[in-house]
Amino acid sequence: MKTIGFIGLGVMGAPMAENLVKAGFDVVGYTRRASGVDRLAAAGGRRATSVAEATRGADVVITMLPDTPEVSEVVLGDGGVLAHSAPGLLLIDMSTISPQTAQRVAAAAAERGVPALDAPVSGGEQGAVEGVLSIMVGGPADAFAAAKPVLDALGTTIVHVGPAGSGQLVKAANQLVVAGTIELVAEAIVLLEATGVDASAGLQVLAGGLAGSTVLNRKAAGMLERRFAPGFRVDLHHKDLGIMLAAARDAGAVVPLGALVAQLMAAVRAQGDGGLDHTALLRGVERLSGRTDV
Amino acid sequence: MKTIGFIGLGVMGAPMAENLVKAGFDVVGYTRRASGVDRLAAAGGRRATSVAEATRGADVVITMLPDTPEVSEVVLGDGGVLAHSAPGLLLIDMSTISPQTAQRVAAAAAERGVPALDAPVSGGEQGAVEGVLSIMVGGPADAFAAAKPVLDALGTTIVHVGPAGSGQLVKAANQLVVAGTIELVAEAIVLLEATGVDASAGLQVLAGGLAGSTVLNRKAAGMLERRFAPGFRVDLHHKDLGIMLAAARDAGAVVPLGALVAQLMAAVRAQGDGGLDHTALLRGVERLSGRTDV
Amino acid sequence: MKTIGFIGLGVMGAPMAENLVKAGFDVVGYTRRASGVDRLAAAGGRRATSVAEATRGADVVITMLPDTPEVSEVVLGDGGVLAHSAPGLLLIDMSTISPQTAQRVAAAAAERGVPALDAPVSGGEQGAVEGVLSIMVGGPADAFAAAKPVLDALGTTIVHVGPAGSGQLVKAANQLVVAGTIELVAEAIVLLEATGVDASAGLQVLAGGLAGSTVLNRKAAGMLERRFAPGFRVDLHHKDLGIMLAAARDAGAVVPLGALVAQLMAAVRAQGDGGLDHTALLRGVERLSGRTDV
Amino acid sequence: MKTIGFIGLGVMGAPMAENLVKAGFDVVGYTRRASGVDRLAAAGGRRATSVAEATRGADVVITMLPDTPEVSEVVLGDGGVLAHSAPGLLLIDMSTISPQTAQRVAAAAAERGVPALDAPVSGGEQGAVEGVLSIMVGGPADAFAAAKPVLDALGTTIVHVGPAGSGQLVKAANQLVVAGTIELVAEAIVLLEATGVDASAGLQVLAGGLAGSTVLNRKAAGMLERRFAPGFRVDLHHKDLGIMLAAARDAGAVVPLGALVAQLMAAVRAQGDGGLDHTALLRGVERLSGRTDV
Repeated sequence: MKTIGFIGLGVMGAPMAENLVKAGFDVVGYTRRASGVDRLAAAGGRRATSVAEATRGADVVITMLPDTPEVSEVVLGDGGVLAHSAPGLLLIDMSTISPQTAQRVAAAAAERGVPALDAPVSGGEQGAVEGVLSIMVGGPADAFAAAKPVLDALGTTIVHVGPAGSGQLVKAANQLVVAGTIELVAEAIVLLEATGVDASAGLQVLAGGLAGSTVLNRKAAGMLERRFAPGFRVDLHHKDLGIMLAAARDAGAVVPLGALVAQLMAAVRAQGDGGLDHTALLRGVERLSGRTDV
Repeated sequence: MKTIGFIGLGVMGAPMAENLVKAGFDVVGYTRRASGVDRLAAAGGRRATSVAEATRGADVVITMLPDTPEVSEVVLGDGGVLAHSAPGLLLIDMSTISPQTAQRVAAAAAERGVPALDAPVSGGEQGAVEGVLSIMVGGPADAFAAAKPVLDALGTTIVHVGPAGSGQLVKAANQLVVAGTIELVAEAIVLLEATGVDASAGLQVLAGGLAGSTVLNRKAAGMLERRFAPGFRVDLHHKDLGIMLAAARDAGAVVPLGALVAQLMAAVRAQGDGGLDHTALLRGVERLSGRTDV
Repeated sequence: MKTIGFIGLGVMGAPMAENLVKAGFDVVGYTRRASGVDRLAAAGGRRATSVAEATRGADVVITMLPDTPEVSEVVLGDGGVLAHSAPGLLLIDMSTISPQTAQRVAAAAAERGVPALDAPVSGGEQGAVEGVLSIMVGGPADAFAAAKPVLDALGTTIVHVGPAGSGQLVKAANQLVVAGTIELVAEAIVLLEATGVDASAGLQVLAGGLAGSTVLNRKAAGMLERRFAPGFRVDLHHKDLGIMLAAARDAGAVVPLGALVAQLMAAVRAQGDGGLDHTALLRGVERLSGRTDV
Repeated sequence: MKTIGFIGLGVMGAPMAENLVKAGFDVVGYTRRASGVDRLAAAGGRRATSVAEATRGADVVITMLPDTPEVSEVVLGDGGVLAHSAPGLLLIDMSTISPQTAQRVAAAAAERGVPALDAPVSGGEQGAVEGVLSIMVGGPADAFAAAKPVLDALGTTIVHVGPAGSGQLVKAANQLVVAGTIELVAEAIVLLEATGVDASAGLQVLAGGLAGSTVLNRKAAGMLERRFAPGFRVDLHHKDLGIMLAAARDAGAVVPLGALVAQLMAAVRAQGDGGLDHTALLRGVERLSGRTDV
């Protein structure tokens, strides 16, 4: 039975670690808040009291952290994973961070004889709980093959998309398309409502044709009823769009709709809705159109 | 058996009229080009040599014309449908035109005792041939009920979305969402290709999550292979986005992504790709990103 | 002494007509509101009670009307200028309307032996009162030469910019640049204020370099103090941007910043600020940035 | 006579250092390329062979470096200015860098008893040579007062705009407005040329009214003739817009036109025009509008 060090037991990490326990892995968890480790222990995992302890003796270390600086510190820092790794460890960072940092992590890990994968996910808290995440994986093909049995416990769509950093780039592209699609649906809703059309009936037609999307299927009803409980928070999507724009900039890829929807997401956040679901882009369109008291 | 006057036997109208014949209606067709009428006659319909002839004696008149001015002329003009209509005729305009004109048509028809519906479609030539169009219908509920058996021969998703003009407004919203979604996928493709990611694998992940869409399902493969045979031409989508923006303007609905994608569609057209499929928005993003010789 | 029929004695037209009186012309004025004609008569002009009366006997007819439909009616309509014109009349339309309509007016006038110019202005009410308008003139060179002495009484920058419609196209370009520049200054102000910089000092530096503009010189102080009394109203600038976008569309000119600022202008209008000065674009940026209670 | 250490003798730094020599300062220069130091020595300055040498014994150190990482290294690095500074030194960074780094430099300097100013410039190579730069200064008021006599040798508009980082923020706002204004003029030119208007005459009218700008006065003639020799290169403006967008993001300031023009600048760069003057934004609009062979 493989031993997995799991670092970062937050909203996403906690249920993921528990799914690994359920799948029969020996999971040693560490996170800053002690309660997070308690929860894992209650579910059958083991406690670590430091990154070092979660790393030593592990066959695989998974990190699931909020943002780029945390990954840099936890993996590359003085008391970090690589400082305590033995050759042969497999490192899987499942956080959403900048592709550049993912490449830096991979290079530093390689120097220590540690193959590394960037493997960000989509599917949200619900996907994490149900073990049905989409996982986009960048890194060496053999490391992907080695990681596959572990990732199978976490998700259903698990795709190797290229060399180190590629997972993050696909995640960036994903966040671009998701934000843009939500905004398009929001603009369509406001257009329909502003003209006295039955928006619900209208969206039903759209969903059945080339305008159809998972956003329409899963999110439109909530949007029409103005239910904005997260889900995936505006604050996080805003962070991710920053990563996307920086990656596009580095690559010389011009993304006009991406840049504009990033401003609209920033607006919703600046307007105080950072804690709402990202479908609150609809509130932004309503404000632009003078159709709201908020 | 009901008699249907069908005016406008083009790429869309011809197969629609034939489907009505197949469904057992007595179809009297008229279009400018004689060959269009011949084709219908060969399929079991009857020839009319004028709008007047297609109108007189019909229970239902369907118009399927290229743009707003044609509908104005054919329906409202001196030799037009309303000039030759008897009370009790049902008028169904299935062209994509401005909601304002649709309302004007409805009002003029009502004065002549003719209930009218605006019932634009989506689904393209293939949907017309196979009789699986989506049809979004604006107008009085009883007129919709009367038209339903006729429309059932043409489409599978047939939804009453509100009063006169509502069908056109839903179509406008549809074209906004479709154009925007294509552009988002195009930006994602260029971002992935510019960074050396396996774009096909990347889009596969996107399709499985919240970024998923009918555009990804039906169109992404062709986009990745740069197959841009229409399908739905840039020129027509450009026209439709003009209708959408005018409707949003009239309604005070602010649609920033819609306005920007309309510029990008106009660019692709100005760059000489007006006759290609609307997925040629990808060529526009490639040109912006300096990634093309074209 | 030349006789000038002046039709449209509103905020702009009234002071323009008075300047023509002062310059020694025989001015026969007509406008819908009787009070407008009274004011001209008090200033030394003559009253007309209809378009026909203002036209008959005039050497020159000037129209200064709110929008395209009014010009169509007053010039081309049954009781309009051309219906009562004698060959040799010179028609100068100084309204801001669509270039297409300007060309239609010119063609219709030519058929009646009436040379016509489109000669929209910039400079606002103050420029009209002081006789320092900028006037951009489209039409035949000899008609421009004939009109020049009249226009000299109204403005200081008077430029012949091309054939019929060209004046309107230059006006459209002008309104694009003005709206865009105001929006850029507004974004700069919010960026500076949001970061605790002395925005007034900052704008002072900008005004002295390549960022300098007449907007910064004339409007920035009012913007910093949130004084938004018109000036030139958002409603009118919104109208003009509609003309600009339609002209760009017809010409295949892609104007991404123009299209976006048109949406932002539409937003400010939808938010209830249509009656404020167009510098209220700043209020739109503040709302987007969550920096306002309004 | 004050001794000034001047680090960074490039296109901008070289003439600035020479102007300080001419103004009577004792200037000790250092730059990576030996030829740069030779040129300064020929102009009456002194050579330093390291950052340390340029720092020790100086009353003031000025840095004029290409980008944020260079400033971090030269000022904060192991062999950097602060490592060799004595209390009482005045540090003036005139590079264009991120406001955040400027604040970090100021904080680190303060710890060493060194007051620091961020003092980026606008006015280009010509402004540097002629000593007529605009200088926007952030930092403590007394440091500004102490620096003023030095800055007077370099520029004509020298404004204290707020605390540490403020100079960079004003520079960011400046670059936003400059890029946006160039793009607006470019869109206006393409609109006029696409419609057969005399663009030169048209821009002349614009320059005389509220659309007027320094860009129109100084740059429009070159744009109309497609002269794109820099001047200020697209590559550098692209860099600066990246700083601007990051600053806006940090501050919660939403800048839709800024974000869009940044994409358009990135496009021109990706299309191979990074080495041209930033007015080459016009080439981008022409490409979008299909009006170019390039």
